[in-house]
Amino acid sequence: MFTVNENYLKLPGSYLFSTVGKKEREYRAANPDKKVIKLSIGDVTQPIAPAIIEAMHKAVDEMGTAEGFHGYAPDLGYEFLRSAIAKSDYKARGVDIDIDEIFVSDGAKSDSANIQEILGPDNIIAVGDPVYPVYVDSNAMAGRTGEYDSASGMWNKVIYMPCLEENGFAPKLPEKTPDVIYLCFPNNPTGATITKDELQKWVDYANEKKALIIYDAAYEAYISEENVAHTIYECDGAKTCAIELKSFSKNAGFTGVRLGYTVVPKELKSGDVALNPLWARRHGTKYNGAPYIIQRAGEAVYSEAGKAELKKQVAYYMNNAKVIKEGLASAGYSVSGGVNAPYIWLKTLNGMTSWEFFDYLLNEVSVVGTPGSGFGPSGEGYFRLTAFGTYENTVEAIDRLKKLI
Amino acid sequence: MFTVNENYLKLPGSYLFSTVGKKEREYRAANPDKKVIKLSIGDVTQPIAPAIIEAMHKAVDEMGTAEGFHGYAPDLGYEFLRSAIAKSDYKARGVDIDIDEIFVSDGAKSDSANIQEILGPDNIIAVGDPVYPVYVDSNAMAGRTGEYDSASGMWNKVIYMPCLEENGFAPKLPEKTPDVIYLCFPNNPTGATITKDELQKWVDYANEKKALIIYDAAYEAYISEENVAHTIYECDGAKTCAIELKSFSKNAGFTGVRLGYTVVPKELKSGDVALNPLWARRHGTKYNGAPYIIQRAGEAVYSEAGKAELKKQVAYYMNNAKVIKEGLASAGYSVSGGVNAPYIWLKTLNGMTSWEFFDYLLNEVSVVGTPGSGFGPSGEGYFRLTAFGTYENTVEAIDRLKKLI
Repeated sequence: MFTVNENYLKLPGSYLFSTVGKKEREYRAANPDKKVIKLSIGDVTQPIAPAIIEAMHKAVDEMGTAEGFHGYAPDLGYEFLRSAIAKSDYKARGVDIDIDEIFVSDGAKSDSANIQEILGPDNIIAVGDPVYPVYVDSNAMAGRTGEYDSASGMWNKVIYMPCLEENGFAPKLPEKTPDVIYLCFPNNPTGATITKDELQKWVDYANEKKALIIYDAAYEAYISEENVAHTIYECDGAKTCAIELKSFSKNAGFTGVRLGYTVVPKELKSGDVALNPLWARRHGTKYNGAPYIIQRAGEAVYSEAGKAELKKQVAYYMNNAKVIKEGLASAGYSVSGGVNAPYIWLKTLNGMTSWEFFDYLLNEVSVVGTPGSGFGPSGEGYFRLTAFGTYENTVEAIDRLKKLI
Repeated sequence: MFTVNENYLKLPGSYLFSTVGKKEREYRAANPDKKVIKLSIGDVTQPIAPAIIEAMHKAVDEMGTAEGFHGYAPDLGYEFLRSAIAKSDYKARGVDIDIDEIFVSDGAKSDSANIQEILGPDNIIAVGDPVYPVYVDSNAMAGRTGEYDSASGMWNKVIYMPCLEENGFAPKLPEKTPDVIYLCFPNNPTGATITKDELQKWVDYANEKKALIIYDAAYEAYISEENVAHTIYECDGAKTCAIELKSFSKNAGFTGVRLGYTVVPKELKSGDVALNPLWARRHGTKYNGAPYIIQRAGEAVYSEAGKAELKKQVAYYMNNAKVIKEGLASAGYSVSGGVNAPYIWLKTLNGMTSWEFFDYLLNEVSVVGTPGSGFGPSGEGYFRLTAFGTYENTVEAIDRLKKLI
């Protein structure tokens, strides 16, 4: 008789955004006259930039001709895209990444979930708390997280690194030594980041402990401060301890276009075993490349026109972040994030729990955000708002929130 | 110290198509004046059909406007596509599949590799021999296949079902009882298929043994005979024992467009545990949906114009199959397949091994095919040719092969 992967049965029931969505739908159904504003899920709203649209039209036309038709793509992605990435995202920052170290994929979510497959079953993982749920859930599915305790909302084999006010909502080096460390800077959900010097400490720690850092840099394009690393490979020694995940979702609005990439340096080894060929094998066996049309869209992200258009798009969202952060701060809310990230992390009012505050905002002012506790126990009492709405809706939502204080 | 997934280290070195490609490149470099014709990898060559090109242009335009922009897609895929699939691929054949049983993905290769993740680690798998390598390799990565013996080319925990001449190059029910059975009809690589009555026996066997069938129907569009099932759910009881994988690669030329889907019926259970919610959880956690533009391309596959255009495209490739099969048969080759599948399976000449024949064809007539032994030990002495080339090249390749006999 065939059996199922029992690790799946240990996963806690409902996914954060499903519950948020359900409550929102119920509220809309009961209040058809109210204008609901969503600053919850990290989904972009601005249309794809003209240079990218043009590139996709061109690629679509090619696919309709015998000469321009493209079948199966190279396993790692087209060289035109990997070269553009190596040049603009690395070489331009003084970092040498070979194109054979870059693996193009359908997005950083898939990569962040799949990357653990090349690791041993007994590795102990460390994650920030609160954290993007995919890191933990994908490891739970692989049986690496032990047992789930629903009272605490924690797995007993995971090292949680609390991101608290006293650390600027970023994790500190853990007391127990992990094998694998998930870091996300600029951070989802807290919007916090750390300086390059602080990141260097993580790299040194990982090299010393022979731990692997899985570095999620999905929000890199939102960095506005000078002393923040745009890639972990700006730190000395990162190539021997870190894998970097990058997304096109937030810098180019590709949430519905689907494109990302992962860097696995050739120097990165566990004992004698290099990780680059393992990921290449995984990529070649369990994936078949991003669509040609979408890879051409990715290439256009790095064109002069694309860069100029996307700079404006990021500025648009970061202006929203400023509206949220400054608006709420001036009204007396306790807020952080929003400077190097499109997320604002705020303290709930009057000691409410995150979900109480969610219900309160929804019922009082028809604004949907994300309860901090949904990202982990240390998120309790906090709330995430995103800067990805339209400017008009963002202004209106903040005006509504100001009235509550 | 972090460790790697040691199952990866057990995988045999080079991938079949990498070796084929390497030999081809070396030959081309040494013989720049020769015209090489490739009938090896199963990659299509005809341009994408006009109705699909039009749908993609429209979707690209939408993505460039505030009103038409689409961010994150629903986890299972857009309803417009899942409804079209349910209607055209199932309802039209008298099969009721609910749209919540259909999971849209980036292709059947990914699904065929990922599906085993929801299964327990101790399941014993059965595969045809020869077989599409992804089924075995993905299970090997998950530690389900035991040890690899390089002398035999077999894993010691896998049940191999030889596809030999005496069975029409299709597998027979295995002697040892497996937990999971991979079936691919029409078959890659042998091009064989079985009747609906014969498929019913597999379904009955699986239900009796409480085994799971993973049914790869990637080549369904090439079925030309009446008594062959287009979906395994045409068989009674298949919903309690089978998952079906479907591809747009071969019926719509989507090898570089990337789209597929998997059906996991709600009735399908291991004991009390339904598989549909497990796959939904896997899909929701480790994947983030196919691009909006590509899903609109998929929808156009089912439009009246799309259907008419693709019927011609399939007919074009099947005419190639006929050219290959009849041409080679008339010259005295021993050939099979090519009637319900775009693959022709031929016996090598003069008792050559598959790789000897590969080298012989390449060196004598500059034709590239795929050695049967690359798909499994029972493929030794056989060779796969594909019908996915252009008509002109196919005719020329067969003329060249005729001269060898």
